[in-house]
Order: sequence, then C-alpha cells, then structure tokens
Amino acid sequence: MKATSPLAPATLASIQLPIRAELDAVFGELGRIVRSDFPMVEDVSAHLLRMKGKLFRPTLLLLAARAVDRLSPVKVTLAATVELIHIATLVHDDSVDHSALRRGQPTINAIFSHQVAVIMGDYLYSRAIVELVNLDDPEPLRVMSRVTTEMTVGEMRELEAYDALDYSEDAYTALIRAKTASLMSGACEVGATDADPALRAVLRRYGTHLGMAFQITDDVLDYTESERTTGKPSGLDLKEHKITLPLIAALPRMTPAERERVAALMRTPEPEDDAIADVIESVSLRGGVEAARGRAAEYADRAAEELEALPAGRARDALADCLVYAVARRS
Amino acid sequence: MKATSPLAPATLASIQLPIRAELDAVFGELGRIVRSDFPMVEDVSAHLLRMKGKLFRPTLLLLAARAVDRLSPVKVTLAATVELIHIATLVHDDSVDHSALRRGQPTINAIFSHQVAVIMGDYLYSRAIVELVNLDDPEPLRVMSRVTTEMTVGEMRELEAYDALDYSEDAYTALIRAKTASLMSGACEVGATDADPALRAVLRRYGTHLGMAFQITDDVLDYTESERTTGKPSGLDLKEHKITLPLIAALPRMTPAERERVAALMRTPEPEDDAIADVIESVSLRGGVEAARGRAAEYADRAAEELEALPAGRARDALADCLVYAVARRS
Repeated sequence: MKATSPLAPATLASIQLPIRAELDAVFGELGRIVRSDFPMVEDVSAHLLRMKGKLFRPTLLLLAARAVDRLSPVKVTLAATVELIHIATLVHDDSVDHSALRRGQPTINAIFSHQVAVIMGDYLYSRAIVELVNLDDPEPLRVMSRVTTEMTVGEMRELEAYDALDYSEDAYTALIRAKTASLMSGACEVGATDADPALRAVLRRYGTHLGMAFQITDDVLDYTESERTTGKPSGLDLKEHKITLPLIAALPRMTPAERERVAALMRTPEPEDDAIADVIESVSLRGGVEAARGRAAEYADRAAEELEALPAGRARDALADCLVYAVARRS
Repeated sequence: MKATSPLAPATLASIQLPIRAELDAVFGELGRIVRSDFPMVEDVSAHLLRMKGKLFRPTLLLLAARAVDRLSPVKVTLAATVELIHIATLVHDDSVDHSALRRGQPTINAIFSHQVAVIMGDYLYSRAIVELVNLDDPEPLRVMSRVTTEMTVGEMRELEAYDALDYSEDAYTALIRAKTASLMSGACEVGATDADPALRAVLRRYGTHLGMAFQITDDVLDYTESERTTGKPSGLDLKEHKITLPLIAALPRMTPAERERVAALMRTPEPEDDAIADVIESVSLRGGVEAARGRAAEYADRAAEELEALPAGRARDALADCLVYAVARRS
C-alpha cells in the first residue's frame, strides 16, 4: 500500500462513512460524560461541545475496532473518552500558550479565564478516567494512562523547542511523538485491545506513524497556508518562536545572511509580519517545506505498510484514506 | 469517643509512630514514580520532593489500612499515589491562584513558570493513574478517579467563593467537602478497599468528617495565626477576597458599619493591611472564629463516633489523635 499518491484527495466525511452511526453516538456520550450539577462546569462543557471538533481520534478508534471486527457499544464510550482527553489537552495547551483562538473560536481561557481553563482541563481528564474505570477492563486504561503521561512529557519538551536555532530533528521527533503521535496511536490501539495481540500491535504502530505524518503536516501548514483556511495566522509558530521541521530542515542550507535573519526574528519578542514572511520565504526556498513534506510522506508510507497485516475491507481502506487525509489536508 | 478535649495535643510525629516504617518507604515510592528520562521533569520533581510535606494523607491511608488489619506493601504504593495526587492539586492551585509561596517555599509557577506548573500537575496526576492501573485492582482507581473529579468541581466552586457577601454556609460546605474532604475521605477508604465493606464505609465517612474539620480549622487559622507559624500572611484569604466560614458566621451579627467595612474591603483590589486587620477583629468580635471552631469540633466528633465501629488498637487510637491534630494544630 502506498498512501502518498492518491487519485482523489480523501475527505474526512467519506473516511467516516463506515462508522458514521457510531460517530454520531459519540456526541451523545460526550454530553453524558461531562454533565455536572454545577452550573459553571455545565457552561464550560457546553461551549466545548459546541465547538465540535472533527472527531479524528474517535474516527481512528472506531475504524481500528471495525478493521479487526471488534466494533461494539463500548467502543463508542471509549471513542468519547479519547476525544475528551484530547479536548482536555487542548484546553490546557491554550492556557499554557495564552492562545485566544482555536479553530477560529475563542478559547476557554479567553472567554472564561486562565483559572477556569486549568480546572476544566483537570475536570475533563478526571471524568474520562472515571468513565474508563467504569468499563471494568484494565487494558484501555493501561493504554490511555501511559499515553497521557507521554503527552505531558511532550508538552514539557515543547517548552524547550523555542528560540534555539540548534534544536535538532531528533529532539523535534521525540517531541511530536510524545505530543501528537502518542494519542493517535493510543486511539488506534484502544480500538483493538480485545483483538489478537499482533493486530493490536499493528494498529499501535500504524497510529504512531500516522500521528507523526499528521503533526509534521500541521507544522508544514503553518508555513504554507493563509489565515482563511487554517483559521489561524500563517507563520504563527515562527511568531511564537516555535521551532518545527520545515525550519530545522532549511537552516543548514541557508546563507549566513538568511540565518542571521532567522536569529534576529528569534531575538525579537514580537516579530513584525514582514520579518516572518521573509523567513517563511527562505524556509521554502531552501527546501525546508519540501523536506518536511517528504518526511511526512515517509511516515505515511510506513503506516500504510502496517495496514497490510489487517483483514481487507472497508475499515482498512478508510484507515488508508486517513493517511491521505493526514498528509494532503489544507487545514 | 470525644475528639475535642484532649489532655495533651497530638503531634503528627506521635500519630505517625504506628506506621513510621511504611511512611518512610512512601518517600522512596514517590521518587520511583516521578522518575523521568527528561531533565526538566526531573528538576521539577526534585524540587517538589525536597519540599517534603507532612504526608498527612498517606498517614491516614496507612493508619486506615492498619486499623482494619490490611497493611501491606501495596498500601505504601497507594499512599504514594494519594500524596502525588495531592501534590498535583497543589501545583495547579498555586498556578490558578498565582501564589508565589507554599509553606514558606517558592512554588513551581514562581521558580519555573506558569506553563511548567500546568504541565507538571498533569504529569504527576497521569503518573499516579499509571501506578494505580499497574496495581491490577479496580477499587482504588474507582475511589481516586471519583475523588479527583470531585476535587476539580470543588476548585470550580472556589472560583465563586470570592467577593460575594451573600455566599452561604451551604455553598461553603459543598466547596470544602469537594475540595478537601473528598481526598482525605478517599485516602482513608483506599486503605480499606480490600476489607469488610462496612469498615470501608466507616473509614470513608470518618475521612469526610475529618476533612471538613481540617479545612474549617485551616480557614480559622487564617484569621488567628501570624505569619511566622503558618508560613503565610495571616488574613491572606481576606486579602484575596476569599469568603470562608469565620466571615460567613460573623456577617449576620455585624453592625451595618462593620458590614460596610467588609464590603469596602471586597471592593478594593489590593486591600491595605489595616483594613484587613480591622475585618479580622470584627469577625473575631462577632463570634465568627468561635462559631467556625464549633463547627470544626462538631465534624471531629462525628468522625470520632465513626471510629467506634473499628477494632480497638494503636491504629484506631492514632486515627482519633488525627482528629485532635486536625482541629488543634497551629499551622
């Protein structure tokens, strides 16, 4: 299987067709789980659920379960808890980064307060754990608690990925593996904890490679897409002095003058749009975007190879389409 | 059993005698659990462990286990996870409150950053859950995940307990039950999840009443103790516009002029020390401190009554001493 040369780009809606009914039920589960008899918790939950993400992680979990013939009502609850853990992470991320917008919508810290964001993230995560405990099956809990620990270490790693022009591709790889790939891998694995252990391992590896491709593509989009399609300003990572793969790959090929312009940007607390546009152009010119896209494609290919071990069928095809989606999406 | 008229005040060191060896082992477990191969996590963990709290919650857990004849090495690990969850909560609390000091020591958000505090709290909590999952016993997990959810709702409730002079004793009771009593209750219950269910329930109720007495006493100390003994400024709650029981109890008995001085303080973003001292005096004069102390004593008595259902012995005596400690301590 080759994931990187699709005839037609896969839309998320088409990918989700084989598990559409279960995915619709995930919204109901999310509502049930975050319900509280305390008004402020209700208000914040309502805002979060209104934002309706793409449910990409629940999609992965349900497709993985279907691919190994283990789709059941419990998987809907598991899919909801994985999305909750994802939302909890976003809420704390936005608080840590002081972000005002997420997918073009105001963040919890912006609408309510920083305090509410910290507490609400804790609430959502605790609720997810309660739900997992109630399923009386230690395996999903084992996977998800390991994953959330990895994610927090990833967040810690991210604090180092600022300013430092000598930030290495190895450090970047460790960072995105912990921050992004771990949860996608966990979602896939949790869909199959009750299946043949070999298939469970296949899906865990598939999810890791997919997650790497997904995050690298995300970081590329910051260099290539304009505000209208991403819902956030292009070049935001640079503005925040965040070092990602396109820049890491381009730096060794830059001229001394170009490198100095990058260094100057990193020294400037609030860099001007022109300075950002300038560095974005250099990164592209010196092949940073191309190199990063190539790396994303490599991970997608490795993920596609894993899929060959799964039974053929609609779910496996949809998982292959997820790879196309991960690397070809524009937002 | 009556807990409120001790012949000699109980010291924590004497209370901890029956479980001293296990308590020493808790430090080793804490170190093992928070170990990480990422330097920043190691640095922050080292700082947290250096602060060495009083291990009051592990003490409760181990005494509860001993009281029902269930002390075992697993209980040491459980005691460490309960302390970790407590520390995680403190780290997030300090970040939410922007506190610079905790027990006279600089907080994580003060030494490192607000970002590190949010992430580190998440890390410690996740690690505690991993540890609980590894014990292959769903009962402690069930208790602790319920408790942490309650604690986050308590934190949310606390955000409302500011400024509002009409904040009721009922709202205050719900707040401290969720914020403080839930974890102490959970610690006691987790010590006995493998014991007779009736004894488990006794210890859960004992822990709840103890926790209520403990927190009310904490709130009283803010009105009665000077900086040197508490390690934080007396009247800090008032300074931060936090409404606690001494004030709630005193308000209805205050003169209109006194009430107006309280209202004025609440309207002042950074009240002067004199204005705070003035309100502290009114609260004491109008019986707020005495009423709150009375309420703490009532809870301690209810907790003491629960203890009568436990087998007599050193551990039960020590649990009774915990009640004396909770209401008679000066810091």
